[in-house]
Amino acid sequence: MADCRSYSHGVEHSDDQQPLPEVLVLDRPAIFAFHEKKFEKKFHLLKAWESSLPMEEFLKNHARSVKAILCSFRTRIRADVLNLLPSVELIACESTGVENIDLVECRKRGIIVTNAASAFVEDVADMAIGLLLSVLMKIPAADRDVRFKLWPKNMTFPVGHFKLREKQIGVVGLGNIGLQVAKRLEAFDCSISYTSRKEKLSSYKYYPNIQELALHCKILIICCALTEQTHHIINRNIMEALGKDGIVINIGRGPLIDEKELVKCLVEGKIGGAGLDVFEEEPCVPKELFELDNVVLTPHRAGFTEQAFFDDFQLLVGNIESVFSTTKSLILPLPNSTLPSW
Amino acid sequence: MADCRSYSHGVEHSDDQQPLPEVLVLDRPAIFAFHEKKFEKKFHLLKAWESSLPMEEFLKNHARSVKAILCSFRTRIRADVLNLLPSVELIACESTGVENIDLVECRKRGIIVTNAASAFVEDVADMAIGLLLSVLMKIPAADRDVRFKLWPKNMTFPVGHFKLREKQIGVVGLGNIGLQVAKRLEAFDCSISYTSRKEKLSSYKYYPNIQELALHCKILIICCALTEQTHHIINRNIMEALGKDGIVINIGRGPLIDEKELVKCLVEGKIGGAGLDVFEEEPCVPKELFELDNVVLTPHRAGFTEQAFFDDFQLLVGNIESVFSTTKSLILPLPNSTLPSW
Repeated sequence: MADCRSYSHGVEHSDDQQPLPEVLVLDRPAIFAFHEKKFEKKFHLLKAWESSLPMEEFLKNHARSVKAILCSFRTRIRADVLNLLPSVELIACESTGVENIDLVECRKRGIIVTNAASAFVEDVADMAIGLLLSVLMKIPAADRDVRFKLWPKNMTFPVGHFKLREKQIGVVGLGNIGLQVAKRLEAFDCSISYTSRKEKLSSYKYYPNIQELALHCKILIICCALTEQTHHIINRNIMEALGKDGIVINIGRGPLIDEKELVKCLVEGKIGGAGLDVFEEEPCVPKELFELDNVVLTPHRAGFTEQAFFDDFQLLVGNIESVFSTTKSLILPLPNSTLPSW
Repeated sequence: MADCRSYSHGVEHSDDQQPLPEVLVLDRPAIFAFHEKKFEKKFHLLKAWESSLPMEEFLKNHARSVKAILCSFRTRIRADVLNLLPSVELIACESTGVENIDLVECRKRGIIVTNAASAFVEDVADMAIGLLLSVLMKIPAADRDVRFKLWPKNMTFPVGHFKLREKQIGVVGLGNIGLQVAKRLEAFDCSISYTSRKEKLSSYKYYPNIQELALHCKILIICCALTEQTHHIINRNIMEALGKDGIVINIGRGPLIDEKELVKCLVEGKIGGAGLDVFEEEPCVPKELFELDNVVLTPHRAGFTEQAFFDDFQLLVGNIESVFSTTKSLILPLPNSTLPSW
């Protein structure tokens, strides 16, 4: 029973010889690339993916008394998992998006869900602008040309799509990230409008209907949360409304766009370009996109800077510690567990 | 004498049968990719590179009465060329930088020099930000990884250098482009300082000494004109002052940086990254740079958008027409032909 030993409770102790509190981790979070050891100094981590047991058996045998779960952005938690974890009080997500957590079920059971709050907000917004400028000016395509020594042969390298100045930009989802994206684009003398579940207090023009927004814009930047309502919010109609020069930037979640239709629209020239950090079936990326110079592809890394992970680490630790402490309180729960804003 | 015939004077006529005014073009301007035909409707273009004659003979035989020259950003005009062109009144450059024109010699001879003025300013500033974000977030490297199908194997893709927010950014040359770069970076909550030949009216902190600027900054954005004073303004000392996380962005001219030392500093890890649109010996790029993921390389294309070229076209036509007209006046000469601001 090597497996049992390696997950026996209370083996690790803190410096003052108190056993470390147990935290369940179902799959490896991205933040472990930087802070795994520091988490291990604070908590006894039950790493489900290191066990040879099937998940259900592992949870039954080792996690029934677990009060806190640390989730990667991929960790899926539904009623079936929660049924095996009767003691859970907190689900702490490393990411901003919590679309893989069944928030309704958590609320029913009185389980608190927390996310990365503002830890990644500015860096994700920076990435949105980086992707937009990369698509507009074909920076990765130009960089490939130079590295493949095509410059001397190809002096008429294609120019940028169009001036960014004075362009109409549509922000889809004016939450924390959308607001930071809009603020940055104002400095490029762009005109900002947005759609969102409801009108926000802002000076930007609001379109309740995304089709209307797309008709008035050259560029759409997708910043909203993935929910049942926003799944495939960018479909063929929206892309056709955006038009053949139109550009779509997605730093939200892959399923916000109907990816098959996006690929068709790009291949058929129905839209002008796309900057995509997220995809419907990560890490799979439609191979048709690899041939296109008006597309920029990054592997779900928006906001991944050392400093953002450090902020996230502090937030996660603070939230998890609050479960085991009578003096510390939660840093920041999700404002409304059933309705993520977009 | 096929060559002579193809360059015989006054063959082309305007719609009202007036012979088109002659304009000398020494090498093919980038703007011809878009507007060559439109230039040909307005002027009889003497295209030196299409002649089989050696340049000197071509100029002696066909260009002695030429009043206007249209220059590419590569066209080199010194006293030896001007000696063969006694009638020249105007040199109209397609680019912002006029480092290949001997401005002192032009002033002596009463020749007016014009440049692209503000036609490319915003787009070049956009490119500076695009290069910076591309380096910071390794966007072209990430795009290559996705296209080479490395994502599933490489889930720990390296994260971005650091948060842009609250970083100290040094703008080298606070002219039109530098000001637009600074304005954009303020929206990313960066702190801007600059060096320039002299202090400008601005709220940004001024360092008369570039070494001091580099010591206080993480990022240098090179926006100044290339002159004798600014040649190799970024040398090894400056890069070492910037430090191992430091990033250099160059959207000015290649020789503003000591390229050999830049390559060494990048290879040795003395600085953290570079975004380069310009190089010392274009179109040659040091091959050591091709191996580096913290470097983004574009083939001297900052500001090349269709709209910028259209603005430039109108400016060039207006300036050239003023030479042949008694009613039209020059749109914009260089403010001071001997001292380009930086």
